[in-house]
Amino acid sequence: MCTLLAQSEQLDRLAEIAIRIGVRVAEGQELIITAPIEALPLVRKITECAYRAGSPLVTTLFTDQQAILTRFEHAHDHSFDRSTGWLFEGMASAFRSGAARLAVIGEDPSLLSGQDPGKIARANRSRSVAYKPTLDLISSFSMNWSLVPYVTSSWAAAVFPQYPLDKAVTRLWQIVFAATRATEPDAVAAWNAHNGDLRARTSLLNGKRYSALHFRGPDTDLRVGLADGHKWAGGAAIARNGITCNTNIPTEEVFTAPHRSRVEGYVTSTRPLSYMGTTISDIRVRFEQGRIVEASAKRGSEIFQQLLEVDEGARRLGEVALVPCSSQISRSGILFHNTLFDENAASHLALGQSYSKCFIDGSDQEKDDFRARGANSSLMHVDWMIGSPDLQVDGLSEGGAIDPIMRSGEWTT
Amino acid sequence: MCTLLAQSEQLDRLAEIAIRIGVRVAEGQELIITAPIEALPLVRKITECAYRAGSPLVTTLFTDQQAILTRFEHAHDHSFDRSTGWLFEGMASAFRSGAARLAVIGEDPSLLSGQDPGKIARANRSRSVAYKPTLDLISSFSMNWSLVPYVTSSWAAAVFPQYPLDKAVTRLWQIVFAATRATEPDAVAAWNAHNGDLRARTSLLNGKRYSALHFRGPDTDLRVGLADGHKWAGGAAIARNGITCNTNIPTEEVFTAPHRSRVEGYVTSTRPLSYMGTTISDIRVRFEQGRIVEASAKRGSEIFQQLLEVDEGARRLGEVALVPCSSQISRSGILFHNTLFDENAASHLALGQSYSKCFIDGSDQEKDDFRARGANSSLMHVDWMIGSPDLQVDGLSEGGAIDPIMRSGEWTT
Repeated sequence: MCTLLAQSEQLDRLAEIAIRIGVRVAEGQELIITAPIEALPLVRKITECAYRAGSPLVTTLFTDQQAILTRFEHAHDHSFDRSTGWLFEGMASAFRSGAARLAVIGEDPSLLSGQDPGKIARANRSRSVAYKPTLDLISSFSMNWSLVPYVTSSWAAAVFPQYPLDKAVTRLWQIVFAATRATEPDAVAAWNAHNGDLRARTSLLNGKRYSALHFRGPDTDLRVGLADGHKWAGGAAIARNGITCNTNIPTEEVFTAPHRSRVEGYVTSTRPLSYMGTTISDIRVRFEQGRIVEASAKRGSEIFQQLLEVDEGARRLGEVALVPCSSQISRSGILFHNTLFDENAASHLALGQSYSKCFIDGSDQEKDDFRARGANSSLMHVDWMIGSPDLQVDGLSEGGAIDPIMRSGEWTT
Repeated sequence: MCTLLAQSEQLDRLAEIAIRIGVRVAEGQELIITAPIEALPLVRKITECAYRAGSPLVTTLFTDQQAILTRFEHAHDHSFDRSTGWLFEGMASAFRSGAARLAVIGEDPSLLSGQDPGKIARANRSRSVAYKPTLDLISSFSMNWSLVPYVTSSWAAAVFPQYPLDKAVTRLWQIVFAATRATEPDAVAAWNAHNGDLRARTSLLNGKRYSALHFRGPDTDLRVGLADGHKWAGGAAIARNGITCNTNIPTEEVFTAPHRSRVEGYVTSTRPLSYMGTTISDIRVRFEQGRIVEASAKRGSEIFQQLLEVDEGARRLGEVALVPCSSQISRSGILFHNTLFDENAASHLALGQSYSKCFIDGSDQEKDDFRARGANSSLMHVDWMIGSPDLQVDGLSEGGAIDPIMRSGEWTT
């Protein structure tokens, strides 16, 4: 009883964090939530918080994971080249008209593990094409948005297969509440302090004006040239509509834009990537002039190869992010099978679309200018983890100076 | 255990009826389902049936009744003049591109009973304006569509307040399964036979070419002129996209289009109307030249008056429907607080938008022609019940002949 009470209070606090720190919906601003149907208890609390904060309309688009699986099991072959463009276009239209976006994340990481990789790839591609108008609004930071977690039973079972389900769910909630600071009596103050720490780190890096980062580790030797006029971002940031938000709850990363043509060398992933209900592990890729020219994966190889074929931008980097191994989420030592957590446990790269907030004056620039400065464009944005206690990161300056940024996975300063 | 098993089998059969008799989704045709979130078990079965039938994409937009209530309890005042136009426009766009529509019905009939009628009226009006593009596609029968029921606990509690909740739910499911023919081992054959019976009735009435119907009963004396070139419809019908469907599961009615300017006299409702989470009872209205010039209601009077103010068409009839008191649903003697059932238990009228399928050559005509023939147009279409064992209905012919159609609520032939 006592545990349940505590959990309910922390769920209240997570809803408050989602609205007051995450998306920060403004008075008069419509809110669109996407969520797995199991997240209903959190969605109800978030909905109340949003209406109290002055949102005139809160609409949740629930996804039933079972329906996705049913499609793969029973739909005819032509299904997998189709997507709900009408729905994504409707959402994009709402965002263009001023709505904010909140996505509740907690999908079953192995939902599609037994399904045909060819169908998965086709379905993902169709979805990416249909989703592009929304992805463009997100990557250009047109409106305030945020991702927040919800522990579904399938997610908990994937993280703690050794536990009975109820224990797995309880244990994962403990970790999720701690990582999202819902355990803090004054969660808003705790988030403000954390945002301050991340801002100090981005200020330091932005002062350096590195031209490239050099990653070294087991089976990794990679030089990532940074985009011209890149900017390090992390924690709270101001969207183009003028509203400050925290786009990820939790977040431990600082990140910026690589130059899409200036990446050289090879790199190996340190954590499996959970991607659209499948797992891709032991990714190893080699870059020449920013482009992946060799790629392999032990598990999920076919899905990974097809992901790289989506478009030219899928073979190039759109983000590079640094996370120390001492970060709260990393210290848990858990593999989350969920990018919102795993990317905050380890330094990572993302293939695909760049974010405009990773450019100086990003909120005033047009896309063509980003491209000239080295931004990448793609239907996708997929993060995968390369950080570990064996990772060394150097900052390279135009003049030839080399600064140690991370040693053994930790900040040097 | 035995009851549960039977219920699960009948739910399977209801899903099959929804797809094979109700909406009859075609190979290659996208399907959009709307449903209360409690209807998830039925939605999952329907989704599987639809994929098996060759639908490439099945998308369900779930509604959480609690979120609607939360809006009324916590949203700021400006909320009630807003609606999710982006979502309705997206749906309409999908229907225009060929998608079929299936709505699962089972809302709490008294959800908003304690809320401010002014806010309810404003929210309904905003929603009606935003929904108009979809209503136009439905009323012009552009695509195959259907409504099917699901017993939510709040609906069951409203129907059987005298029972404990689990008994209320079980009892209402028994009635719903019987009314939808899910109790029949060969439900498709049973529906084909029922559609044949309704077709025989509409053929009979269409042969008569009545110019008007005369309703007489307690506190009712109403002449309803029929539209020029009206057609009686009922049971299965062919949508403009060429697909036959049953738009209501269950259905017992035959119905046609009144002439919007040729209704005279007064009429009193015989069952309460459940409208958008509120109840309107003891409606009494008087018509002159098709227009309501006096209107009252005992319960829900303010909501009813505001409904009449939505637009000019809200004061005029868009449908007249005949249902004998011996119909299976009527015989149950139950007040369902749900129009999908109550309208099939009693003859009824609808205020607002006409249906194009109630016109000869309805599938080839443009709207302007319908209007010249007496069709009504409105943001709304609201059915309310006037049938009872005390109702007499005569058919009036152009030449002055009077045919008795119903006596004491039953067909005369």
